[in-house]
Amino acid sequence: MKFSDIIPVLETVAPPEYAEEFDAGRIGDIINLDNDIDKIAVSLDPTDYVLKRAADIGADLLITHHTLIFEPVTKIAKPFSDKLKVALDNEISLYSMHTNYDKVPGGVNDILADRLGLTNIEELEIGRIGYISPCSTGTFAGHVSRCLDTHVQYVGDNKTVEKVMVFGGSGFKSQYLDIAHENGVDAFVSSELKHDVIRNRGDISLIDATHYATENPAMEKLCERLEEMLKLDVEFIDHNPFISVI
Amino acid sequence: MKFSDIIPVLETVAPPEYAEEFDAGRIGDIINLDNDIDKIAVSLDPTDYVLKRAADIGADLLITHHTLIFEPVTKIAKPFSDKLKVALDNEISLYSMHTNYDKVPGGVNDILADRLGLTNIEELEIGRIGYISPCSTGTFAGHVSRCLDTHVQYVGDNKTVEKVMVFGGSGFKSQYLDIAHENGVDAFVSSELKHDVIRNRGDISLIDATHYATENPAMEKLCERLEEMLKLDVEFIDHNPFISVI
Amino acid sequence: MKFSDIIPVLETVAPPEYAEEFDAGRIGDIINLDNDIDKIAVSLDPTDYVLKRAADIGADLLITHHTLIFEPVTKIAKPFSDKLKVALDNEISLYSMHTNYDKVPGGVNDILADRLGLTNIEELEIGRIGYISPCSTGTFAGHVSRCLDTHVQYVGDNKTVEKVMVFGGSGFKSQYLDIAHENGVDAFVSSELKHDVIRNRGDISLIDATHYATENPAMEKLCERLEEMLKLDVEFIDHNPFISVI
Amino acid sequence: MKFSDIIPVLETVAPPEYAEEFDAGRIGDIINLDNDIDKIAVSLDPTDYVLKRAADIGADLLITHHTLIFEPVTKIAKPFSDKLKVALDNEISLYSMHTNYDKVPGGVNDILADRLGLTNIEELEIGRIGYISPCSTGTFAGHVSRCLDTHVQYVGDNKTVEKVMVFGGSGFKSQYLDIAHENGVDAFVSSELKHDVIRNRGDISLIDATHYATENPAMEKLCERLEEMLKLDVEFIDHNPFISVI
Amino acid sequence: MKFSDIIPVLETVAPPEYAEEFDAGRIGDIINLDNDIDKIAVSLDPTDYVLKRAADIGADLLITHHTLIFEPVTKIAKPFSDKLKVALDNEISLYSMHTNYDKVPGGVNDILADRLGLTNIEELEIGRIGYISPCSTGTFAGHVSRCLDTHVQYVGDNKTVEKVMVFGGSGFKSQYLDIAHENGVDAFVSSELKHDVIRNRGDISLIDATHYATENPAMEKLCERLEEMLKLDVEFIDHNPFISVI
Amino acid sequence: MKFSDIIPVLETVAPPEYAEEFDAGRIGDIINLDNDIDKIAVSLDPTDYVLKRAADIGADLLITHHTLIFEPVTKIAKPFSDKLKVALDNEISLYSMHTNYDKVPGGVNDILADRLGLTNIEELEIGRIGYISPCSTGTFAGHVSRCLDTHVQYVGDNKTVEKVMVFGGSGFKSQYLDIAHENGVDAFVSSELKHDVIRNRGDISLIDATHYATENPAMEKLCERLEEMLKLDVEFIDHNPFISVI
Repeated sequence: MKFSDIIPVLETVAPPEYAEEFDAGRIGDIINLDNDIDKIAVSLDPTDYVLKRAADIGADLLITHHTLIFEPVTKIAKPFSDKLKVALDNEISLYSMHTNYDKVPGGVNDILADRLGLTNIEELEIGRIGYISPCSTGTFAGHVSRCLDTHVQYVGDNKTVEKVMVFGGSGFKSQYLDIAHENGVDAFVSSELKHDVIRNRGDISLIDATHYATENPAMEKLCERLEEMLKLDVEFIDHNPFISVI
Repeated sequence: MKFSDIIPVLETVAPPEYAEEFDAGRIGDIINLDNDIDKIAVSLDPTDYVLKRAADIGADLLITHHTLIFEPVTKIAKPFSDKLKVALDNEISLYSMHTNYDKVPGGVNDILADRLGLTNIEELEIGRIGYISPCSTGTFAGHVSRCLDTHVQYVGDNKTVEKVMVFGGSGFKSQYLDIAHENGVDAFVSSELKHDVIRNRGDISLIDATHYATENPAMEKLCERLEEMLKLDVEFIDHNPFISVI
Repeated sequence: MKFSDIIPVLETVAPPEYAEEFDAGRIGDIINLDNDIDKIAVSLDPTDYVLKRAADIGADLLITHHTLIFEPVTKIAKPFSDKLKVALDNEISLYSMHTNYDKVPGGVNDILADRLGLTNIEELEIGRIGYISPCSTGTFAGHVSRCLDTHVQYVGDNKTVEKVMVFGGSGFKSQYLDIAHENGVDAFVSSELKHDVIRNRGDISLIDATHYATENPAMEKLCERLEEMLKLDVEFIDHNPFISVI
Repeated sequence: MKFSDIIPVLETVAPPEYAEEFDAGRIGDIINLDNDIDKIAVSLDPTDYVLKRAADIGADLLITHHTLIFEPVTKIAKPFSDKLKVALDNEISLYSMHTNYDKVPGGVNDILADRLGLTNIEELEIGRIGYISPCSTGTFAGHVSRCLDTHVQYVGDNKTVEKVMVFGGSGFKSQYLDIAHENGVDAFVSSELKHDVIRNRGDISLIDATHYATENPAMEKLCERLEEMLKLDVEFIDHNPFISVI
Repeated sequence: MKFSDIIPVLETVAPPEYAEEFDAGRIGDIINLDNDIDKIAVSLDPTDYVLKRAADIGADLLITHHTLIFEPVTKIAKPFSDKLKVALDNEISLYSMHTNYDKVPGGVNDILADRLGLTNIEELEIGRIGYISPCSTGTFAGHVSRCLDTHVQYVGDNKTVEKVMVFGGSGFKSQYLDIAHENGVDAFVSSELKHDVIRNRGDISLIDATHYATENPAMEKLCERLEEMLKLDVEFIDHNPFISVI
Repeated sequence: MKFSDIIPVLETVAPPEYAEEFDAGRIGDIINLDNDIDKIAVSLDPTDYVLKRAADIGADLLITHHTLIFEPVTKIAKPFSDKLKVALDNEISLYSMHTNYDKVPGGVNDILADRLGLTNIEELEIGRIGYISPCSTGTFAGHVSRCLDTHVQYVGDNKTVEKVMVFGGSGFKSQYLDIAHENGVDAFVSSELKHDVIRNRGDISLIDATHYATENPAMEKLCERLEEMLKLDVEFIDHNPFISVI
C-alpha cells in the first residue's frame, strides 16, 4: 500500500483541521519517502530507541504523537542526523498526529476520560469533562494512579471530587485552568504542573499524572484501530521515560 | 523610613539590570503607596493568605519573588480586587524581585547551590554549576530531597554524578537544557520537568525538586540580610503549596 | 440588584459590538466587585472628585464615558491607588461606555445632534449629519455656543451653513475630516481642533465646542433612561473642567 | 547659489540629528529641483496660498516648518497635484525643518521662551523651562496672549505661577505632561489642548496659545538669520488661520 | 469624456479585485488630474521617452502596465520630478493596470498564450497552461522567439515538449515553478530567469523570452479594445529596451 | 583531520561576520556529521549530480556557495530526502560559504574583477569597482563573454566604457544599481537582469554574464587555496547549467 494512500485514512482518524494553529508544519507526513507500506510502527515519540526498534521490526512507517522537527531547521547535525539516517537507510516514513488527535472524538482526551471511567462526558475545545462517584481528592488521585499505572503528584483540599476535567499532555497552563474554572470542575487531571497554576487553582484539585501516562494509552489504542482499518501489520513500541520519585 | 528610601537598598540586593527582558514591568515597586515602612514581610508569592498574614503582622511592605500582576490589566475584578483591597486598606506596598534576584551573586541560585553543598561554584548567565562527591543519580536525588525538605522526581541512568547544574524555579526548558549540555554536567536540578526536556536530556540526570523548594530558601535568607541592612523588623511568611505524591 | 444583572441592561443601551477596535479592554465592567447595586452615579470621567462624590452619595456603581485605566498596567502607584481605594473601600463598581455609546442610535452623537436642533439626521459610522436653517458660520457658531452652554472656537469663511456634521469628543482628526469632505458638509462641530485639520479643511467651517460640552449632555441624558429601565436611584455628577478664554 | 550648497547651511541652523524618529522622511529637501537659488521664501506651512505667494515673489526655494507630504504616497491627485504644479512650474524647491528646528538651541522653543520673557531657561529634550515674576494663572495667561498676539484658552486654579514649561506646537500630550510633572512646573504653555490632559494636569495650569502663534515667530525669526548667513533675499510669508472665539 | 467616466470602463477590462495584494496602491489612477480625455496613449512603462511622446501626440491620459511610483514617497527629486512636470504641464493623467490585467481573462497571459498558438488553454491563478504539437525544447524555443520577435534563453533536456505553462513578466520565481511542477508541464515560458529556478527545474524546460516581449503584446492589444469601447483616439507607444546578445 | 578542526580554517577564508543578515542559518556547517575529513569536494551548488559525484570521488566534505536548505524546514520529502540520503550514507558533511565569500577580500568579487582584468580595484560593501582601457559597450561585452567563457546579454548606448562595477551572482537589483549610480560607473557586470533595472539604468551599460559564470571561477579558485592551507586532497566538481540562446 502506498504511503500516499494511507495518509487519507490517517486523516480520518485525526483530521488536520482539528489541529491547533501552532502545530502548522508539525503534523502529517514529517518524513515522506513515498514508499510502499507493509508494516506500521506506532509510538509516543520518535526517540533514538523508537526509530531503531522500528527498523528492527521492519516498519515502513512510524506514526508518533510528537513530531521529529519541532523548530524549523536550516542545518542538520548530530544527534538529529543519526535519527534521520536510521529513517532514510531503513526507508521508514514518519507521520505525526498531535493536537488534531488530542481533540478529535475518539482521540487522546476521549481515551484518557475512558481509562479513568468518567461518565456523562462532554467535549471541550480540547479536553473533556466527566463525572466520577464522589470521593476525596486523595482517593481520586489514587484511582488515577492505578488506572494509568503511574505515580501522580496532586494538590487539593479535603473537598469531595465529582466533576472532573481531563487533558492529555501538558494541560496545566493558565488558559486551560481558566476553562476548568469556567466549568466549575472539582478536579483537573493533566501533566507538567506549574507553580503559578497551583497558586491560581482556587478550590480546584490538580492531579499531575505525567505527560507520558496521560497520552501513551491513546497511541496504544491507535494500533488496534489502524490494523482494522488498513488490514496491515501495526505494532506498538513503548518507550517509558521511567520517572522515579523520592 | 520612607519606601522611596528603601528601594535603593533593595536594588543593591537585586539590581534591576540583572532582570531578564520579559520581566519588564514585573519587578520593583508593584504597589507603591509612598508610605513609611516600619515592618517588612517577605514571602515567595503574594497569595491571599500571604497578604492577609502581612496585614495581621502589621507589615507596611511585602517583598515577594513573583509579582502580583503578571499580564498587564485594564480591568479589575474578583479575586484580584480582594487582594488589592487588603493591600490598600492596610497600607501595604508591594515590591517584587524576580529574575534579577535569581541571577545576582548571593541570590536565588547561589543560595540553592549553597543549600546543596556544591563546591567550586561557577556562575552561568542565570543558573550555577558546582561539584559534589561522586555518587549515583538516586543517591544524589535523595540528598537534594533532604537538603530542600521536599519530595523529588528524577530521571537518570546508573551514571555517577559529580558535576551539577542548579537553577531555582522553572528551569527545565530546552534553552537551559542546552546550557547544561554545553557545560557537560552530569545532573541538572530545577523544577517543572517537561516531557520534551526528558526526551532530549541525552545522558544528563534531571532532578525536579519543585518550584517552591528551590526558590523559597532564597526568600527566607533575604529576611536576615534586610534586617541587617535596614535595621527594621523583617518577618518571613511561609506558604507551602503542599504537593502530595502517590 | 446584582451588578451582573445590570450589565445586560447597560449593554442594550450601548452594545459592546458598536465599540471601536482600540477600545478593547476599555469598555464594560472596569471594576467589577460583584456587588449589589441600589444606587448608580453617572459622570463623564472617573476623576478624584467624581469618585469621592459617588462615595458621598452612597453609589454602588459609577458609570462613566472614559475609562479609569487607559494603558494596561502592571504596577499601581499614587494617585491611581487613591482612586482605587475610594472605589474598593466604598464598594463602588465602575462601568465604562465609550465609542459604543458614541455610535449607538440614541447615544452621544444623536443627543448632540438633537441638542443643536439638527433635522433630517443621517447616521455615519460614528458621527451624524443633519441640517439647520441657512445662516453664516459666525451665527451658527453662536447657536452652538448657546445650545451647549460653552465657549467655542471656529474657523470659516463667510459662507452659508446648512449641512452640518457633528461628532462628540475629539473628532477633529484627518480621517473624520475626510468623511466630512466626502459628505460635502458646510460645517463640522466637534472638539480638540488641530492645526493640520484647519489647514486641510478646504471650505468646511470648523466649530470646536470642547470635548466636555459635546459629550456631557449624553451622560446626563443617560440618567433618565437608566432610572426608567432599572427602577433604581440614578444620580448625575457634573465635573466641568472650566476652561477660560482670553 | 545651488540648492545643494544651501542645504548644509540649513543643516547648521536645524541639524537633522535633532529630529524625532517619526520625522524620518519628513524633514530636509522635500522637493529638490537641483536649481539655483536667488530668493528664498519662509512660512509655517506649504498651503496653496503660501505656494502661490512664493511664486508671485519669485522665490526659488520655500522653507516651511511642516512638510508637504505627511503620509508616504503612491498616487497623486487634486488638490495635491495643484500644489506640485505651482512648485514645478515656478521651479520652487521645498525644504522642511520640523522637530529638529523645535529642539535645536536657538530654535522654535527658545524663540517662544524668549518671546514670553522667561528667565533662567533650561533645555529639556524638546521644550524649555523658565521663570517669570510670580503672578496668578489668569494674569500669566493674559501676558501670553499679549506676547504672542493671540487668543488663549486656559485652565488653572488660583495658584501663583512662577516656573513655566513651554512647548511650541501640539505639546499637550500625556508624555509631555509627564515631563511637566517631573519638573514641578506651575504652568505649561503649548497648544491643541486635549480633555485627558486637562483631567490629568494635577495642579499645573495649562495655557493653550494655538499651534500657529507658538510656532510662527520662530519661522519669522528664521528669515533674519538666513539673510545674514546666506546673503540672499529671504522673505517671510504669513498665513494666519484666523481662529475666532465666542 | 471625463477621466472619472473612463475609469469604470478600464475597471471592466482589468478589475482591481484581480490584483495581487502587493499591488495595493500601485494600480488604478496613479496621477488623477480630473481632466477631460480626448486622446489616450498606451505603453508598457511610464519612461521619460514614453511621457514625452505622450505629450507630443497630445494624449490626456497615459495607460501603462507598470506604475510610476513603486515605493511610497515622502520626497520628490530629479529625475522623478521631471516626469511629473511633463505629466502636470501637459495635463496627462496616468492609469496603471498590472497584476489585475495579467490575470483577467483576455489579459496579459491569455494574449501571450494566444500569440504562442497554444490550444486547450486552462487558467491558473495567474498564468495559463496550454498545448502545442509535440517538438523538442530547442524547436519550441525557436517558435517562441519567432512568435514574440525576441531573442530567448533556454535550458532543457532533449525532451519532447507538448504541455506548456506561460506567465507574462517575471514569472521565474520558486512559487510559480512549484505550480509548473504540480501541473506536470513540459516547458515554462516566462522571463527574468534565475539560477535557483534553473537548479530546481527538475525536468521542466525553461524558456526566458524577456519581460518586455512577453508583456508588450498585451498593451498593444489594449489599444484596439479601448478604441472600440470608448470611441476615442487611442495610440500605442512602443519603447523597446533593445537587449543585445553575444 | 576532524571537521571541527577544518571549520576555523574555512572561517579565515570567508569569515561569517562578512555575511549579509539574510544569510543567517544559511552559511557554515549545513550538514555536520562530526566526521574525519580526508578528501574535500568543492562546487557551486549541492545539486543531485554534485552530491553523487562527491560520493563517487570519496569526498568526506562538500563545500558549496549556495546552501542545501534555503527556507527552514519542518518536513522532509523527495527529492530533498534523496540528497540527504546520499550525504548521510556516504558520510559527507556539507559546508556553505555565501555572501561572506562574496564580500571578503580575495573572494568571489575580487576573483571576478581579476578575471576581467580590471585595474585600480576599489572594494564596495559587496561588489568591486575597477577600470579597463576605454572601449564601446559592445566591445566590453565581448571581452566579458570571452573572459568568463559564457554568452552575455547587454543593454547600453554607444558610450565609452572605462569605469566598471562587478558583482558576482544576482546583483541586478535596485539597491545595487543605486550604488552603481552613486559611484558614476560606465558599466555594471552581474547577472539575473531585471526589466525595472533596465528601465532605471540611466546611462549605465548593463552586462548580464549569468549567475553561474560570474561565481563559478571563485569556487574553482577555492580548491587551490584549500589544498595549500589544509594539505588535503581537494577536487572541484563543475556543474554547468548549459543555457542556450536563440
